[in-house]
Amino acid sequence: MAILPPGTPPGPGVNPHPAPRHPRLDPLADRYAARTHGMKTSEIRALFSVVSRPEVVSLAGGMPAVTALPLDAVGSMIGELVSGMGAQTLQYGSGQGDPRLRERICDVMALEGITDASPSEVVVTVGSQQGLDLVTRVFVDPGDVILAEAPSYVGALGVFQSAEARVRHVPMDDDGLIPEALEQALIECRANGDRVKFLYTVPNYHNPAGVTLTEPRRQAVMEIADRYDLLVVEDNPYGLLGFDREPMRALRARDDRRVIYLGSFSKTFSPGLRVGWVLAPLAVREKLVLATEAQVLCPPSLTQYAVARYLDTQPWREQIKHFVELYRERRDATLESLEQLMPAGTTWTKPDGGFYVWLKLPHGLDAKLMQPRAVNAHVAYVPGIGFYADGGGREYMRLSYCYPEPDEIREGVRRLARVIEAELDLHSTFDAVDTGTFRAAARPTPGHEAENMVGPANSDTYEDGRA
Amino acid sequence: MAILPPGTPPGPGVNPHPAPRHPRLDPLADRYAARTHGMKTSEIRALFSVVSRPEVVSLAGGMPAVTALPLDAVGSMIGELVSGMGAQTLQYGSGQGDPRLRERICDVMALEGITDASPSEVVVTVGSQQGLDLVTRVFVDPGDVILAEAPSYVGALGVFQSAEARVRHVPMDDDGLIPEALEQALIECRANGDRVKFLYTVPNYHNPAGVTLTEPRRQAVMEIADRYDLLVVEDNPYGLLGFDREPMRALRARDDRRVIYLGSFSKTFSPGLRVGWVLAPLAVREKLVLATEAQVLCPPSLTQYAVARYLDTQPWREQIKHFVELYRERRDATLESLEQLMPAGTTWTKPDGGFYVWLKLPHGLDAKLMQPRAVNAHVAYVPGIGFYADGGGREYMRLSYCYPEPDEIREGVRRLARVIEAELDLHSTFDAVDTGTFRAAARPTPGHEAENMVGPANSDTYEDGRA
Repeated sequence: MAILPPGTPPGPGVNPHPAPRHPRLDPLADRYAARTHGMKTSEIRALFSVVSRPEVVSLAGGMPAVTALPLDAVGSMIGELVSGMGAQTLQYGSGQGDPRLRERICDVMALEGITDASPSEVVVTVGSQQGLDLVTRVFVDPGDVILAEAPSYVGALGVFQSAEARVRHVPMDDDGLIPEALEQALIECRANGDRVKFLYTVPNYHNPAGVTLTEPRRQAVMEIADRYDLLVVEDNPYGLLGFDREPMRALRARDDRRVIYLGSFSKTFSPGLRVGWVLAPLAVREKLVLATEAQVLCPPSLTQYAVARYLDTQPWREQIKHFVELYRERRDATLESLEQLMPAGTTWTKPDGGFYVWLKLPHGLDAKLMQPRAVNAHVAYVPGIGFYADGGGREYMRLSYCYPEPDEIREGVRRLARVIEAELDLHSTFDAVDTGTFRAAARPTPGHEAENMVGPANSDTYEDGRA
Repeated sequence: MAILPPGTPPGPGVNPHPAPRHPRLDPLADRYAARTHGMKTSEIRALFSVVSRPEVVSLAGGMPAVTALPLDAVGSMIGELVSGMGAQTLQYGSGQGDPRLRERICDVMALEGITDASPSEVVVTVGSQQGLDLVTRVFVDPGDVILAEAPSYVGALGVFQSAEARVRHVPMDDDGLIPEALEQALIECRANGDRVKFLYTVPNYHNPAGVTLTEPRRQAVMEIADRYDLLVVEDNPYGLLGFDREPMRALRARDDRRVIYLGSFSKTFSPGLRVGWVLAPLAVREKLVLATEAQVLCPPSLTQYAVARYLDTQPWREQIKHFVELYRERRDATLESLEQLMPAGTTWTKPDGGFYVWLKLPHGLDAKLMQPRAVNAHVAYVPGIGFYADGGGREYMRLSYCYPEPDEIREGVRRLARVIEAELDLHSTFDAVDTGTFRAAARPTPGHEAENMVGPANSDTYEDGRA
């Protein structure tokens, strides 16, 4: 049996749950598809085992505060959906998703200025992650180029990698994506003969950067998209979670042909239901439905009915206000502690919505190499390199304030500050020696596309932003 | 704006749900990925609008009889999961799926002789459809060959098409896949230098053929797989729905390295929860987890907890017996009516489990061309061509008895028999004339790979089977 590795134990035993057999080598290694060889564990999943330890303050995960929901009301609501409508909620549904839910989704999008969306242009997905995967499968062949902010959402980079796309990062600053840099990237891609399939952007309360694309820049980006005939994929899970103002007007509200919009109920209701959506022009929507039918047949009926019923019967706008107040308090605790405790040379963004702060370490420190010391000090974060497709971002880390209580946040930042100070002492002591901690700014990563457009350039703009 | 088709109406209006704008041509047509151009609507979805009309008896859909579940008990069970465990059931989970559910899944698989499965080798998926999509994404590059029964599950063909795989059909008879034909296909693929990635097979109560792979053939198929170093993807949604015997021993129970097993709760509990799974060797399992994280992040938590709690607290084995009795009664109604009413020359399989009868029309009739006349007569079925990747199967149709009541089934078969008789009259009247209804046996489909191995060969074996 050629696919049996040498020396593997014999077949079936009787123990119902035996310990797994670890083959010493993967006997199927030569059979995988090309896309499979590039797959790797994300920086976030690598942390799962760590952050679940109670003594660790986790500023790593992006888990919403779901216990702030009225669980009894939601529980009886969902229970009644099954008892009273089991013939629908437990049965197969349509690939495009429940029509009633698609109508409610149009109401939600209207809050961000999308007033012309038709339910027939909406496809319900298993979280907006599936929405991005479907859009990517429909448009992207191996080798195609996708433009994405530097940094970008780690889950999006996973989708693009599995599509064998080439990601070209475009730098941001505290006002979000830099339009001039976008145009520069388009010019260079044209010169290279690259097929640019779309720009992937998170305009509101960016994950991980925590910044928001300003109104003038929204206009500038859409003008450039027009001029260069660029398709834009607008990923907007956090748009309704602004602390200080009304929701910004979506890019999709400015152009219903050139923008494909991804939405999610994960941050406004519940991520455990995995209900998101794509709003796309009809021709694209039809392709997306065919793609999702091949992938999952149809989204779960029960979770779709649960969201639609929640929007119909529960005070969901007030619930979002409640979430916002809770996240604002945690954002404040984070920024206050950072101001009080972080050593000089540490810089960070100041989000006015969403879940994340993007922190830059003092010159020469490396968030990935520092991570084991942080875990020993019982604080967890996500190293910045997870948010770059090109090896950039070693001097950055993402801090999430969405899940821990304010006191935990303060304690976590205190521990983190101590770890950074210890690194700095080490740095000054062994200044001449390359211990491996000091590589970040020093060495460009091998195979680093558009080196000048990520990392350093990006970090400078952050520093200017704070000045 | 080059992506705007000429003459499209101006932008945003104020109507919250305006009628969709149908572009006269797809302005993005030149931007899609190669895989997208081949996507087409399945024969089953094409029927959705028809079968939902109350006057139509639908023998088309494969919807389980979910109303036979104890809906009140399941409703309060799920309601309590949300009220009492909202912090888990409404939150993100792991990409691999809930550990407790993966343990219960191992108990379920033990009923089919898989006693050595470890929960760590199980990946929970959004229905087994996603499981098949993940396996295909992990193994299949464009142009690779997948061996699949003739006919094959339409949803599987959709997955393979979207992976740009080439499907090579292997004929079946009333005893399931024909081992000699499998070996023949492998020999020919080797001669062609094709990369055969795996055999896709539904060994129990096949969809659509309704036949089951016999015990001797299971041994023969696995011997061939061994001899040709062939990976086998065993798709088994119906295995516990046998009418006359204990579950057959799974192929996976015979080989834990060469067989990747797909399971589902859609037919034993509820399809609306979309909970399925893949059992695969650890190295493959790890790739599947990375692929599912890129696709959906994680399966819905609520639906996973619902299935695990159902298996823990509800009499699920007795419920399966209840389903089986109900489907047996409907199978009997179907076979009795067919025997009584079908004109000579019509043949069909005799399932002893599952949902489907595979019917072959008298010589010269075409199920696809006959479909509009059937719909006019208020009866719906799925034309056979939907279950072939190569244009075969025009003389076949799939009849599903899982959903309609026995009386509806009898009426549906009565209407179908009249339509077939009318076709035969037409046939004898215009015998010399090719009205289009008589093409099936006459013309080979253009671009028909391995013509000799599908359609005619297959149909002959069915006739032998009934002789």
